[in-house]
Parts: sequence; C-alpha cells; structure tokens
Amino acid sequence: MDPDAVAKAFVEHYYSTFDANRAGLANLYQEGSMLTFEGQKIQGSQSIVAKLTSLPFQQCKHNITTVDCQPSGSGGMLVFVSGNLQLAGEQHALKFSQMFHLMPTPQGSFYVLNDIFRLNDA
Amino acid sequence: MDPDAVAKAFVEHYYSTFDANRAGLANLYQEGSMLTFEGQKIQGSQSIVAKLTSLPFQQCKHNITTVDCQPSGSGGMLVFVSGNLQLAGEQHALKFSQMFHLMPTPQGSFYVLNDIFRLNDA
Repeated sequence: MDPDAVAKAFVEHYYSTFDANRAGLANLYQEGSMLTFEGQKIQGSQSIVAKLTSLPFQQCKHNITTVDCQPSGSGGMLVFVSGNLQLAGEQHALKFSQMFHLMPTPQGSFYVLNDIFRLNDA
Repeated sequence: MDPDAVAKAFVEHYYSTFDANRAGLANLYQEGSMLTFEGQKIQGSQSIVAKLTSLPFQQCKHNITTVDCQPSGSGGMLVFVSGNLQLAGEQHALKFSQMFHLMPTPQGSFYVLNDIFRLNDA
C-alpha cells in the first residue's frame, strides 16, 4: 500500500462525492467520527452529514491545491489538504484547509475518525 | 484534562519557542516523529530541528488565528492551527496552516508524532 496513493484516492473520492451528492459521504464516517467545521464540533456520521447537507449553498466545486499524508500509528493515516471552494454564483473561490484522520476498517478500507475544516480567508 | 486547554497551551509553547529559540523544539519531537514542510518529508527529532533551524530567515513571529483540537484515539490529540507568520524585514505576513498529532509520553506530557505545515499563499 502506497500511503500517498491512498491519500490521493481518498481526497478525490471525498470531494467528488461532496460536490455531486453530499449525503453520500455518510458511509465515510462512523458513530465515533468527529467533524470540527469552522470551530463547530459535531460527532457521529448522521450529525456530520446533516451539517454538511445543510450548508447554505447548493452547488459547489472543490479544487485541490496540495495533499500531504503521514502514517499516524495503529494503521491510521493523516491527510492534510489545501484548496479552494467555488460556490455557484460566487465570483471568487474560497481558500480552505482541511485535515482527515483515516482509520482502517475490518473490510480493508478506511473511515474518517477526525475531520477539521477551516476557511483560510479569516 | 481539558483537551482545548492542552491544545492552546501546546500551541503557545510551540510557537513562542519557535520564535525565540528554534533549537529548543528538539525535545517536542522523538525519533519516530515526522514533519512534512511544504511537501518535504523529514523524520526524527534531529533532522526536523535541523530543517527548522536552517529555514532562510532569522527572526520571525507567529500570530495564531484559530486552534481546533480533537481526540485522535490512544490518548493522542490532533491540533489544527491557522495563523500568519511575520518575517523580519518583510512587509506582508504569510498565512499558514499547520497540524500536529500529539501523543502522550510516559511522563504525562505530549510529544509531536506528526507535523504538517503549509503556507496558504499558493
């Protein structure tokens, strides 16, 4: 397993799902998963997806600038992303940074244990 | 232990040490620690501090904008920081994002297992 390839595949899957069908992100999270979105802490797959699907925009497109990854111990992996987020009807894209802590599933895949998102425009 | 308080104290200690005496960061890392600095991967306390002390500026000042933290399992903690970095003699500060994965030591403190740094200006 090449960690960089796994990280890149995860990032592509995550943001293409986000941009096409946010509700489809539910199976990437579990009950113990945590999201901190612009400082707001949310726990559990259902609550996380409720937050993401209720964000006040319909169409968006994530463009990824950088992806860094490191093994985090216990088979986990940290993925650190920077990029910009284009909202439909908005002239300027928003820069963001986001980190994911991926943990292995018994099925040989990964789920998101930790997710922290921040816009860089502050 | 209040994780947010631990994260805030770590961040204050880390950046005040960075700005005053970068070599003093050595005891926050261990042999298994990893730094990814603007995409460059470096492993081990000695190599990490060699990188940080060789950055091409002498005086700098980190100003922190946001600190987010989450428990990462196994007693660890993820700390996600955004802020700006003012270099001596430069007119404009550089925006950055950085994440730390802190793991507990037997002495009841924490060390940095994972560290990923990116400037946001790209």
